[in-house]
Amino acid sequence: MVLARKDPVRIKDLAEHFGVSPSTVSRALSPKGRSLISADLAARIRAKAEEMGYVGDVYATGLRTGRTRTVGVIIPDIQNPIFPPIVRGIQNRMDEAGLVTLIAYSDNRIDLARREVERLLGRRVDGLIYASAFLEDPVIDFCREQGVSLVLLNRSVRGARGLYHEVLNDEAEGIRQTVAHLASLGHRRIVHFNGPVDVLQGLERREALRRYVREYGLEAEECECTAFSREEGARCARQFLSARPSATAIVAGNDLIAIGAVQVFKEAGLRVPDQVSVVGFNGMPFSEMFDPPLTTVAIPHVQLGARAAEILLGEMQGESEGPLTVKLEPVLVARRSSGPAPGGAVDDPPRATETSLKPSIPSS
Amino acid sequence: MVLARKDPVRIKDLAEHFGVSPSTVSRALSPKGRSLISADLAARIRAKAEEMGYVGDVYATGLRTGRTRTVGVIIPDIQNPIFPPIVRGIQNRMDEAGLVTLIAYSDNRIDLARREVERLLGRRVDGLIYASAFLEDPVIDFCREQGVSLVLLNRSVRGARGLYHEVLNDEAEGIRQTVAHLASLGHRRIVHFNGPVDVLQGLERREALRRYVREYGLEAEECECTAFSREEGARCARQFLSARPSATAIVAGNDLIAIGAVQVFKEAGLRVPDQVSVVGFNGMPFSEMFDPPLTTVAIPHVQLGARAAEILLGEMQGESEGPLTVKLEPVLVARRSSGPAPGGAVDDPPRATETSLKPSIPSS
Repeated sequence: MVLARKDPVRIKDLAEHFGVSPSTVSRALSPKGRSLISADLAARIRAKAEEMGYVGDVYATGLRTGRTRTVGVIIPDIQNPIFPPIVRGIQNRMDEAGLVTLIAYSDNRIDLARREVERLLGRRVDGLIYASAFLEDPVIDFCREQGVSLVLLNRSVRGARGLYHEVLNDEAEGIRQTVAHLASLGHRRIVHFNGPVDVLQGLERREALRRYVREYGLEAEECECTAFSREEGARCARQFLSARPSATAIVAGNDLIAIGAVQVFKEAGLRVPDQVSVVGFNGMPFSEMFDPPLTTVAIPHVQLGARAAEILLGEMQGESEGPLTVKLEPVLVARRSSGPAPGGAVDDPPRATETSLKPSIPSS
Repeated sequence: MVLARKDPVRIKDLAEHFGVSPSTVSRALSPKGRSLISADLAARIRAKAEEMGYVGDVYATGLRTGRTRTVGVIIPDIQNPIFPPIVRGIQNRMDEAGLVTLIAYSDNRIDLARREVERLLGRRVDGLIYASAFLEDPVIDFCREQGVSLVLLNRSVRGARGLYHEVLNDEAEGIRQTVAHLASLGHRRIVHFNGPVDVLQGLERREALRRYVREYGLEAEECECTAFSREEGARCARQFLSARPSATAIVAGNDLIAIGAVQVFKEAGLRVPDQVSVVGFNGMPFSEMFDPPLTTVAIPHVQLGARAAEILLGEMQGESEGPLTVKLEPVLVARRSSGPAPGGAVDDPPRATETSLKPSIPSS
C-alpha cells in the first residue's frame, strides 16, 4: 500500500480557518500564551487543531529557536544488558522535559563512536550523553571542539575528570562490598578475573580490589580478561582449573565474566559455591534466575541514566555551575553463587587443598 | 562548564572560502555529484570540510527534499528482553540506509502509544515501525489517517492483515514444535499457562496449542495469565500446585511466564523437569544460564527488526507492491527444563500421580 503522505496541518491553516493571525493560533496552542487571548477563541482553536490532526512541528520550532529539542546518546550496544535500563532512565527524564532522544551505538569502536557523534551533530542535537568504552578517547576532544553540551555516562575517560560532567557508578565501593562479603565468609585467597584495564571501569575495579584485599588482610591473584565477556571469563576459568590455585573465591570483573566462569566450572564438575565462590558485578537482569543465582554488585542503572539526563538538561539551559562528577552507590546482592570458604571460618583461615579444586562428579 | 555552542560549519562557509558557488560545494560533498566537478577541486573541498569540522546538516536537506530521513519505532519497553535485539536489527538496517531511528515506548498503554505517535509525527518521521501491544488498536487507524508509512512488528492487530505491512514470528509453528517436543518425551497431559488473549500473540499461541494438542493426541488444560509476566506465571504455578493436576508439562506463554512458574515450583520443591517439564517462548538472552536452562522457542529477533526496516524502506520509496505479511520461523531450543514424562515412555502414556506433584524436599 503506497499512501501519499498527507500534508501536515500547519498553524497557517488554522489561522486561515479562523480568520486570525498565525501568532493568535500559536498562543492558543501554547500553555503559556493561552491566557493572552480570549478563553473561548483559544478553546475553539484547540478543538479544531485536534480535529484537523495538528501534531505540532518541531522543525518549525527548531528554525525559530535554533534548538531542535533533541539529544543524542551513544552507548556501545543496546544488547549489552546494562544499557536498556540506562537508556530508559535517560528517556524518561528527557520525555518529561519534552525532548527526543536519539540512540546510537559505538560497538566499542572509536571510529564508529566518532562517526555516530558526527551523525548526531548533523542532526543538530542540543546535547550528548556518551558512554565511552575507552580509557583514552579522542571522540571526547572532538565533542569539545564542536562545543556541544556533553555528559559522560557509566564509563569515565582518562583526563576527563574536572573537564566534563560525569555520572558514574562508585566502582571502588562495589569492590569494597565484594571483598568485605568474601572476607566475612572466611575466604582468604581470591582470584580477580579483572576486566580490560584499557577501560577505566576495569582499571578502577582492579585498583580497588588490590587496595581492599590489603585492607581486609586477604591475598589475591589476577587473570586479566581482554573484554567484559563470557568468553574471557571462560578462558580465565580454564586457566584457573589448570593452575589449581588454592584460592576459594573468584571476583569477576562483571556479570558476563562471572557467567562464563561459572559455566566452565560447572562443566568441569567444580561446585559453585561449595568449592569456589563467584561474585559478579553489574546486577544484570535475571541474574537471580541463574544456576546458581549470582551474587553481584547491583548498579542503579535507571538512576544513572536519569541523573545524566538531568545534568545535561541543566547544562543546556546554562544552569550548570561547573563540571560535576556524580557517583551513585551500588549495593552487593548476596545470592547462592557465594558461600562460606570450604572448611573454614573467619577466625580460622582455611586453605583449600589442591584436591578441592580438582574436577569431580557433580552431586546432582 | 558552559561552553558556547560553536556555529556549525555550513556549505556557504566552504563556498566563500573557495570562491565557488554553494552548489559546487554540495557536489563535492555528495558521492553522486562529485563527478560533475573537477576531481582536484572536489578533493580540496572535501579536505577543507573535514578540517573545518563540517558534519552535514540533515535539517537543511530535509527542507530541500521534504524528507527528514528519520523513522520512528514504538515498542512497549526496551527493558523487555526481546526488544533490544529487535531494535538493533532495525537500527543496523536504517543506519546502512543513512536514516536515523527514534525509539519511543508505549509501556503497553494505548494512550501513551498514541501520544508517542503524535510526537514522532511532530518530528516529521518518514515512516513508523509499531510493535502494538493490543488486539484492537485505534492508534493504527490514527497512523493511517495521518498517511504515514507503517510496518507492524512482532505483534499483529485484529483487522490489520492485508491492510498494513506486518513482520511477525510464526507463532503457530513455535507452538507446533513445542507440542511435538513434549509428545516425543512421552507427555500426554499438559497445562498451557497462556498469555493474555487480548494480545494477538497470546490468542494465536492459544489457538495453535489447542489445535496441535488435538493433532498430537494430547490433552490440555489452561491457566490464563493477564500479562506476559513472571508474576502471572507464578500465580498460575501456585494454582497448579494447589489443584495437583495429573499434567506433566507446562507450556508457558513466554519466557517470563516460564521463569515465574519455575521459581514457584523450585520453592515448593517440585523438581523441574523430573516432576514437571516447563517450556518457554521467545528465546530470551541468557535463558541457557537459568536453573534449569530453559527449553524455549527462539525467535529470530534481530532478523525481525531488520526485515521490518527493509519493508519500511521499500514502502517509503514507493517500491512496495501491496501489504506484505512476512512470517519468520522460530526454532525450539531443547534444554534441561524439559525432560521425559515421569515414569513413562511414548508408547505407554503415563499419568503422574497426585503425590508426584506434592511439594517435597529438594534433592540437593
